[in-house]
Amino acid sequence: MGKEIPSRSEDYSLWYNELVKKADLAEHSDVRGCMVIKPYGYSIWEKMQQALDAMFKETGHVNAYFPLFVPKSMFEAEEQNAEGFAKECAIVTHYRLKNDPSQKGKLIVDSEAKLEEELVVRPTSEAIIWNTYKKWIQSYRDLPILVNQWANVVRWEMRTRLFLRTAEFLWQEGHTAHSTREEAIAETLQMLDVYAAFAEQFMAMPVIKGRKTEGEKFPGALDTYCIEAMMQDGKALQAGTSHFLGQNFAKAFDVQFAGKDGKLDYVWGTSWGASTRLMGALIMAHSDDDGLVLPPKLAPIHVVIVPIFRNDDELKRIEEKVNSLIPALKAKGLSVKFDKRDTHKPGFKFAEWELKGVPVRLAIGPRDLDNGTIELARRDTREKQVLRFEAVPTTVPDLLDDIQRNIYQRALKFQSEHITQVDTYDTFKKVLDEKGGFVAAHWDGTIETEAAIKEETKATIRCIPLDAAEEAGPCIYSGKPSARRVLFARAY
Amino acid sequence: MGKEIPSRSEDYSLWYNELVKKADLAEHSDVRGCMVIKPYGYSIWEKMQQALDAMFKETGHVNAYFPLFVPKSMFEAEEQNAEGFAKECAIVTHYRLKNDPSQKGKLIVDSEAKLEEELVVRPTSEAIIWNTYKKWIQSYRDLPILVNQWANVVRWEMRTRLFLRTAEFLWQEGHTAHSTREEAIAETLQMLDVYAAFAEQFMAMPVIKGRKTEGEKFPGALDTYCIEAMMQDGKALQAGTSHFLGQNFAKAFDVQFAGKDGKLDYVWGTSWGASTRLMGALIMAHSDDDGLVLPPKLAPIHVVIVPIFRNDDELKRIEEKVNSLIPALKAKGLSVKFDKRDTHKPGFKFAEWELKGVPVRLAIGPRDLDNGTIELARRDTREKQVLRFEAVPTTVPDLLDDIQRNIYQRALKFQSEHITQVDTYDTFKKVLDEKGGFVAAHWDGTIETEAAIKEETKATIRCIPLDAAEEAGPCIYSGKPSARRVLFARAY
Repeated sequence: MGKEIPSRSEDYSLWYNELVKKADLAEHSDVRGCMVIKPYGYSIWEKMQQALDAMFKETGHVNAYFPLFVPKSMFEAEEQNAEGFAKECAIVTHYRLKNDPSQKGKLIVDSEAKLEEELVVRPTSEAIIWNTYKKWIQSYRDLPILVNQWANVVRWEMRTRLFLRTAEFLWQEGHTAHSTREEAIAETLQMLDVYAAFAEQFMAMPVIKGRKTEGEKFPGALDTYCIEAMMQDGKALQAGTSHFLGQNFAKAFDVQFAGKDGKLDYVWGTSWGASTRLMGALIMAHSDDDGLVLPPKLAPIHVVIVPIFRNDDELKRIEEKVNSLIPALKAKGLSVKFDKRDTHKPGFKFAEWELKGVPVRLAIGPRDLDNGTIELARRDTREKQVLRFEAVPTTVPDLLDDIQRNIYQRALKFQSEHITQVDTYDTFKKVLDEKGGFVAAHWDGTIETEAAIKEETKATIRCIPLDAAEEAGPCIYSGKPSARRVLFARAY
Repeated sequence: MGKEIPSRSEDYSLWYNELVKKADLAEHSDVRGCMVIKPYGYSIWEKMQQALDAMFKETGHVNAYFPLFVPKSMFEAEEQNAEGFAKECAIVTHYRLKNDPSQKGKLIVDSEAKLEEELVVRPTSEAIIWNTYKKWIQSYRDLPILVNQWANVVRWEMRTRLFLRTAEFLWQEGHTAHSTREEAIAETLQMLDVYAAFAEQFMAMPVIKGRKTEGEKFPGALDTYCIEAMMQDGKALQAGTSHFLGQNFAKAFDVQFAGKDGKLDYVWGTSWGASTRLMGALIMAHSDDDGLVLPPKLAPIHVVIVPIFRNDDELKRIEEKVNSLIPALKAKGLSVKFDKRDTHKPGFKFAEWELKGVPVRLAIGPRDLDNGTIELARRDTREKQVLRFEAVPTTVPDLLDDIQRNIYQRALKFQSEHITQVDTYDTFKKVLDEKGGFVAAHWDGTIETEAAIKEETKATIRCIPLDAAEEAGPCIYSGKPSARRVLFARAY
């Protein structure tokens, strides 16, 4: 086979790395920290993009494109933001190579082509976009601006993992401008809901909506909201963030508008993003020791059909039958792969399509032809059933809906079972080490306590859940009063 | 109005620049040479992407994503390619900024964070991709690889024009790998046909398919094929290229495969690309002194409905009627904008939607309500007609088809009238200066003659048309023998 992957219990981290590579999702490139997203992985990302893009457009947003480079002086205009990203920026300093006079066929940087001002490769685009919005906004009539961008960004990470943390990644970043604080906050929360709906309805991944602490919020934001998902090893993964920027960027770039009363005021802003990290979340939320488990709504192939044959004649008879089935499945909007390779045995093909997470497998052999049947296997539960051939086009779409629901419910059950309320620091550490998952605990609200807990346990405050009940209690670390529980976890 | 643009006859170049800005397609950013693609312009680009992407997938291609950065040693591996792009590369040399000790709130490049090896921001991705293909290809069973990438690339241009020539631009680049020379050539020509079909069927822009001369071909290719379009000022615009790379990149990156006979051979390659330059071509091919003329197949808005009203009551009555029409038009797959702003007069709206190139405008006022009619105006010919209201949902789709055909035919007629056969160098120069367009002339096949003609007239050989008839004749410049005519033109 050569395609086997370690089990999750054996080595969760290695399981993930090997799965990403062996399922042809992505691989490390020879460029430090940068990945190659392979065609199969990219086709899942395309499905994510399509679904998200449609949701953005339904909520009134339009796409645009802004420059890859940000001049240093523009980048540093919003100080908190600049400070937050300064340590991980790729910097362009020159614009030309020349022949190396000492080595034929080699090139060196042309020192005469040094830029007057260095360019930062965008780690995020608030600076360049607010610098542009200054030209677009004069009065309240120009607002709101509801723009999204699909783009690549670069954050120079020292330790990288495929999809989860790479120097270059793909994402979308929404940047909106509003005439009132209330409208900007409503936008921030609306986009948080969009992300949550996408995660739950498309990725079949339950998430917890919450607000980040001061210590964890986006540099330059007044408030950062997030959706947090739980992976199968109990660790948290931040799957999308939505920032209320207040007037910070408007002030940094002097973006003012005349209101209906003619008075000038600074514009209110939001930004929100989700990235190829979601691929990592999707993989870790559902997959098993045999490979990927994909939610049907994001699966590039819904149904794989594997013929069981000993000779060309048998394959030909099966093919005729299958050729009558494929259009009926496609008519239901399904993507179908007929794997008639004669270079591999059915067992190999079964394993390969399981590795790649195809939700439904149909197998058909000569005996099935005689009986008018087909064998159906679902990827999520591994259950098999023998169907009347004619029933396939009606059974499969329902089954796909059921798979989508089932993997969501399974993940939701896992999440519920792994959120633990604790009231002492000892229990807190014990739960983190022995059970994992999210820990709901009281916290005194200080950065110092948050930092100390992180230092001692590697757990961070993932969020202050939006639905957290008011409940007075003592901080597990300092004993000082707390008004509600927050969620701690170790995180990706 | 404030939205008027100069006429084409007055100043074609200024007409283009102003049209791009005033129609909200794109604008210069404050980053040298980089543009901002505004939402309306981007929505046209999205339509182009969708159509091209579907055509690529129909011909068996899949999308993937490769790194933005190319390490210098990888970049220089294919010498011709490296030499061709070395003079216009953005180079990343550092990966961190730090606080400027002498100026609070300012950042400087951290000299301790200098990269061991500089990174080139991709001007094109052959190097990084063939470096990856080396890992993907062992035997003939791994071939062909038919991959496309949608990405941004950077070529440091000194003189930039929106869409036509910018330091950063968006494009797609196909990179395929094959086991035989013949298959690679067939792929190269197939993709040329795809580009030509896209230009003609979607952009309504006739093109001439041809081969580039040695002097004009892609650095690193054995042969470059192109589609050349004619703009309304008679200048040529290269609208897509498809390169037969031979084994050049396979040799540079040592990509070999074992054939069915077990023998090792280098892989054959192609690459092909089209970019946001197509936006410039689209604009210049069809638009007029009142603004954009968009082919319906790429128009973000097919139909704009403008109500003619004096008071809220009239608007309300019109709105009721229009609300019954919109779903009927949407059901035909059309994108409809109902412009009921009360801040602008109908005349202003008419001019604005003409500027933005919306193919069909419907206007409806109180008298139309009484008569059961609506006024329809088509953007391409400016013709108006009064229709029975009920006829709109059936009339408009046919009319859009007619507009698509008409603007193609108009451009084709213009092109045919502006391809001139000449047999002497004097006539050649006279035609270029007085009539413009493409000049079909004999050329002796040497780089020297090509360079001399370019130097003296600014005209380049756009291509050797694929359908050029065999016809012996003397080179217009040197008098030496030539076997067929080639197409010269001044070009964007």
